[in-house]
Amino acid sequence: MSIVTISREFGSGGREVGKRLADALGYAYYDREIVTAIAQKNRLDEDYVASALSRGMYRNIPLHFGRTFTYSAAMMTDTTNLFVEQHRIIRELAANDNCIIVGRAAGVILREQDPFKLFVHADMASKVKRCQARAGEDEHFTDREMERRIKKIDSERARYHELFSGIDWGDKAGYHLCLNTTGAEIKAVIPSLAEYIRCWFENKEK
Amino acid sequence: MSIVTISREFGSGGREVGKRLADALGYAYYDREIVTAIAQKNRLDEDYVASALSRGMYRNIPLHFGRTFTYSAAMMTDTTNLFVEQHRIIRELAANDNCIIVGRAAGVILREQDPFKLFVHADMASKVKRCQARAGEDEHFTDREMERRIKKIDSERARYHELFSGIDWGDKAGYHLCLNTTGAEIKAVIPSLAEYIRCWFENKEK
Repeated sequence: MSIVTISREFGSGGREVGKRLADALGYAYYDREIVTAIAQKNRLDEDYVASALSRGMYRNIPLHFGRTFTYSAAMMTDTTNLFVEQHRIIRELAANDNCIIVGRAAGVILREQDPFKLFVHADMASKVKRCQARAGEDEHFTDREMERRIKKIDSERARYHELFSGIDWGDKAGYHLCLNTTGAEIKAVIPSLAEYIRCWFENKEK
Repeated sequence: MSIVTISREFGSGGREVGKRLADALGYAYYDREIVTAIAQKNRLDEDYVASALSRGMYRNIPLHFGRTFTYSAAMMTDTTNLFVEQHRIIRELAANDNCIIVGRAAGVILREQDPFKLFVHADMASKVKRCQARAGEDEHFTDREMERRIKKIDSERARYHELFSGIDWGDKAGYHLCLNTTGAEIKAVIPSLAEYIRCWFENKEK
């Protein structure tokens, strides 16, 4: 199975990279879909699950997950179990199909499958610009507020990643490729990026 | 003019990436050639020039170079002037031809030309392995000695880079792409990497 995991700074276009890469490679694409699956399966509100997974984890989660955890639907009352469920779903998805998984420290969770790990980043000015361009009609942030929001979300992502990994989030040593989208047109570079990944899977050392 | 600059950890295969990319893109390739040009032009020993540029600079070089320096062949007695000369030659090469320049903080020196900046890295085990494989017959290092050598050379490269740049050597924010060669077959991924760079030049925001 060929698995690509994407970590990304908020506003860097990592989601666009992931979706377009999935189309170019013919792989399944999983991002928010994972949260939806957890919510549906456990009859929980999707926003609650998303929020608990991104914010509630620092109180009651053990420092390292192992395979020794057991899971039962009745235990889904606290965040820890949402995490166990998330890990289980990610492993299940990766076992079934070539796929691209965005976020959720999937590169660490799936290390035994040796995924291609991509990190997408950009400078602050272009992240603010991208976020402003996609902000909803009822969302009004000054550039400064947007910058604070980006930093806050990225610091949550970094902390989440560090729960499961010995390598810092965004440290290039933890990725096969770090892609800077500043000044680049994502759509234009996708075919060659997809080809790069295809070659990497075909030729990697066993 | 399309300029690609490559920074690389010692033993990561950055030189191989550079040469193969130059072939694939049809660009000129400059690495040690720059040292040779300085030595020839100033009737200095090539090894002396190489050594002065990589080791002797911390004593007498000002923190930032500008364009205010004047150059004369008679002044070539101290390291500072070797640096001025190196910068001049790098700018001259980049003005004449599409090219790939390896090392020498060329990405920083040429920032006004907006080069594509690539960083090549790998984990320590594969760098040691690569260095051992290419060591000359009269070079015998244990893996531990090789690791120390790699770290020493990389720390020189980092210090050299920091003389001219506000961004740390190897910090992904300073590069368009960071390429991890661990477990990858360089030859196999070059065509797609070349295509990626070609697309980047064609589509970058003006």
